[in-house]
Amino acid sequence: MSDDHGDSANWLRTGIGASTPDAITIRGRDLARELMGTVTFTEHAFLLAAGRLPTPGETKLFDAVLVALADHGLTPTVLAARLTYLGAPESIQGAIAAGLLGGGSVFLGVVEDTARFLHAILDGLGADPGDDALQAAATEAVAEAVAAGRRIPGLGHPVHKVEDPRTPRLYALAAEGGLAGPHLDLLRHVAAAHAKATGKALPVNGAGAAGAALADLGFPPALVRGFAILARAAGIVGHLAEEMAHPMAMALYRDVEDRAVYVTGESPRRP
Amino acid sequence: MSDDHGDSANWLRTGIGASTPDAITIRGRDLARELMGTVTFTEHAFLLAAGRLPTPGETKLFDAVLVALADHGLTPTVLAARLTYLGAPESIQGAIAAGLLGGGSVFLGVVEDTARFLHAILDGLGADPGDDALQAAATEAVAEAVAAGRRIPGLGHPVHKVEDPRTPRLYALAAEGGLAGPHLDLLRHVAAAHAKATGKALPVNGAGAAGAALADLGFPPALVRGFAILARAAGIVGHLAEEMAHPMAMALYRDVEDRAVYVTGESPRRP
Amino acid sequence: MSDDHGDSANWLRTGIGASTPDAITIRGRDLARELMGTVTFTEHAFLLAAGRLPTPGETKLFDAVLVALADHGLTPTVLAARLTYLGAPESIQGAIAAGLLGGGSVFLGVVEDTARFLHAILDGLGADPGDDALQAAATEAVAEAVAAGRRIPGLGHPVHKVEDPRTPRLYALAAEGGLAGPHLDLLRHVAAAHAKATGKALPVNGAGAAGAALADLGFPPALVRGFAILARAAGIVGHLAEEMAHPMAMALYRDVEDRAVYVTGESPRRP
Amino acid sequence: MSDDHGDSANWLRTGIGASTPDAITIRGRDLARELMGTVTFTEHAFLLAAGRLPTPGETKLFDAVLVALADHGLTPTVLAARLTYLGAPESIQGAIAAGLLGGGSVFLGVVEDTARFLHAILDGLGADPGDDALQAAATEAVAEAVAAGRRIPGLGHPVHKVEDPRTPRLYALAAEGGLAGPHLDLLRHVAAAHAKATGKALPVNGAGAAGAALADLGFPPALVRGFAILARAAGIVGHLAEEMAHPMAMALYRDVEDRAVYVTGESPRRP
Repeated sequence: MSDDHGDSANWLRTGIGASTPDAITIRGRDLARELMGTVTFTEHAFLLAAGRLPTPGETKLFDAVLVALADHGLTPTVLAARLTYLGAPESIQGAIAAGLLGGGSVFLGVVEDTARFLHAILDGLGADPGDDALQAAATEAVAEAVAAGRRIPGLGHPVHKVEDPRTPRLYALAAEGGLAGPHLDLLRHVAAAHAKATGKALPVNGAGAAGAALADLGFPPALVRGFAILARAAGIVGHLAEEMAHPMAMALYRDVEDRAVYVTGESPRRP
Repeated sequence: MSDDHGDSANWLRTGIGASTPDAITIRGRDLARELMGTVTFTEHAFLLAAGRLPTPGETKLFDAVLVALADHGLTPTVLAARLTYLGAPESIQGAIAAGLLGGGSVFLGVVEDTARFLHAILDGLGADPGDDALQAAATEAVAEAVAAGRRIPGLGHPVHKVEDPRTPRLYALAAEGGLAGPHLDLLRHVAAAHAKATGKALPVNGAGAAGAALADLGFPPALVRGFAILARAAGIVGHLAEEMAHPMAMALYRDVEDRAVYVTGESPRRP
Repeated sequence: MSDDHGDSANWLRTGIGASTPDAITIRGRDLARELMGTVTFTEHAFLLAAGRLPTPGETKLFDAVLVALADHGLTPTVLAARLTYLGAPESIQGAIAAGLLGGGSVFLGVVEDTARFLHAILDGLGADPGDDALQAAATEAVAEAVAAGRRIPGLGHPVHKVEDPRTPRLYALAAEGGLAGPHLDLLRHVAAAHAKATGKALPVNGAGAAGAALADLGFPPALVRGFAILARAAGIVGHLAEEMAHPMAMALYRDVEDRAVYVTGESPRRP
Repeated sequence: MSDDHGDSANWLRTGIGASTPDAITIRGRDLARELMGTVTFTEHAFLLAAGRLPTPGETKLFDAVLVALADHGLTPTVLAARLTYLGAPESIQGAIAAGLLGGGSVFLGVVEDTARFLHAILDGLGADPGDDALQAAATEAVAEAVAAGRRIPGLGHPVHKVEDPRTPRLYALAAEGGLAGPHLDLLRHVAAAHAKATGKALPVNGAGAAGAALADLGFPPALVRGFAILARAAGIVGHLAEEMAHPMAMALYRDVEDRAVYVTGESPRRP
């Protein structure tokens, strides 16, 4: 047994999990004896992805991120899951998957987009940039985005127009744990620079703050949306529990059918 | 604001989440002020589905169940997720969803099947059946299943042939927390009755014990597979993290292509 | 190159497709030279699944089945696809997949359930049973299902209460092509026996007739739902085309949000 | 009944399908009386998406595109579908969906990327640009992409290094039907310009030619990948038919498990 992934001839390797007749090993730890009853599911999810257990401070911040992203009501994602459950109640995995598939660029993708945006700026700075360097970099990146007419990820929210209540809480928890790293710091500078450049103050939204926090926890930007999806899975399971007890999907479908107008003109798109 | 879901005219109701410009409310609690930084993701998932927070003992057992089910290596589910990521790395939600879709009757479905099997037996007994009643009911249900040639869910494992290491750990944690309820108790009687009836001792497998534990935590059988899917999402995110750092999916595909034999005879199925 | 799938050591075999630098071969035919421009997509789908090309009569019936099942309006499946597209417009495969995931036991599963039900009855009869034998077997199977309180798949429709317009058309096309086989014949007897046994005439629904027609085309019951899913994919693509031009998903979400009542009472499920 | 989608108050409208007790209407046509038995599934799919029936020449080209894209062997997509079927054989829709979810940027996305790339160039030209204008625009767009180090979509193939056999066939069929429009023409100029600019001749691949053909058939670039997904669904159903008769997924899983090396070193990523 080796500790590296090695060359291309050795592609069939994993450091995550293995089973023998007597034991299951996860990231080098005995699942039943060392992990079950000892670590929380949050710590376990961190271990699976990062290859090490989080510190107590990291766990608290990671928990807060997952709690922040799990649910906020009857979103399109939740409606898709409930409507899918209506057609295939014997396959709850399908309803959950259908709900998660809406986690794209428009909603949950913000988590990843923000992490990528901040990461790209930080890549251009040296290690451990000071606050002045972060501010200058934020000003420059915002100016470039504004000039190009690009939206800056992580800013603004259709409902929480002044402040997304999750954002200050995430910042406070990161500060408490000594975990406010360059991504979270830079995102605050980005919001300030954007307000200054455009005269329009947009709050840092919860998804953006979550993306920055996950990046400060050491996860690569390409992965962070995966945790938003994990969080959302818990929200969908909650909604499916409610759908089982108090169904709405059939009534929603009937309501749409009753109200819909059918337009039968033929498209004149081509002669 | 009312506290019931009411009649059919009032189908568009949810007790899970709501947003206002200032606050997000989850199950009647302020997300940012009462939940983030206070509850773990596990407690939050329980709250979302059950409508109440778990006790500390329930949390420990629920955490152990989720940890037990998250991952055990390069399963078909994980391979499907990695192969999907290879084709659509820009849509991590698709890779996670593809992995979860394998959570059907053959693998993760055991969690639900066991809960349903035990629940149906318990439904036929009065409230709070004694141990003798459980044993008698187990003997009868096993005899019926064996006579009909039906597999009993929750027993046996292709790798852990003598004992699934997760099972005694889940029983011990349930006992510690005073949470070993009728489903867990009955499952033990079912395994004993099966060994007696067939002369072949099959261990209670981890998925079966998890299903019984989730049912003893108060979740309906139709929902319990949802938590197995949630747990598995964490495992898949871990594997995608590894796939990003040390890819294997392309090499697996090439390996299959290189080794595959093409059979070009026409099917003679119909004249 | 061999023409059988061989023993367990030779599991990595396929008779479907292969590529070389110069050619792609599908089921033993050159894709570019023999199939493209020569066969329709319907014939190609038949070839892929059955391993042979259909006759002209089979093609006509198979086309009619796929056309019958593709779409019938703003179904839950279509709504799930549109809501998923709203969140992830960059991943149209996710929206299509989300729509297809609703093709379970409640809606499209009827295609498979009917084929399985008929197949099981026919399995108990000898080869080429006469009409009297089919009628007797239908009467017996219906009596058994009615006595056990089981629904008979393929009968009844919530909208088309007297006759599903697709059914007589499928029967007429099968008859024209000389393809009305034992599954279609038996299904008609099943409907008659059900009316006689219960005094309540339920029409054979389009999904049931489609399932019987696919079984008479030689496809195994376990596969027939796959064709219903293929057909539905075309309907979903149509709806996504409309969603791009005339979006409704965001307005549907806002409408649900505006009308929804939030119920914040805590669940008293457990003390 | 109106023939337009109207203002924002009238968002709940569709021109695709509707049902009454007696009839199902698709795009203004009676499904049972006008479409089933009259149009092929390919024509129906075109009608659903475009709102009108295709001409015979369009049908032939559209069929060829769908046939070209349906399958080419044991791709990652097919392996994901088979592995998912292994875990959830009772939910064939899940296996199909899992397979389709790999239709992202790396493989099937080329269809859409090519259509978008060509569409953007054509947008900058007037209506009905002559061949010289197309050539000049191709040269310019290629120069820009090469200078920026961007891959040009639709060129090159890992297996068909000299010529993708599907490409000349699609061009020939388009020419026969008088349907070789500006996208197909431009793509040929793009390939030539790329060979000239880089000294390296890359063939137009089948996915790229398919994307250009679909755009010349009048479909918007954002939709064309949907047809690639539809085509692929037929390929996946074929592979699932084979998986039912000659399973390989379990053996593939066992083979991976047997050969995999477990790497248990702890990640040193963070101190």
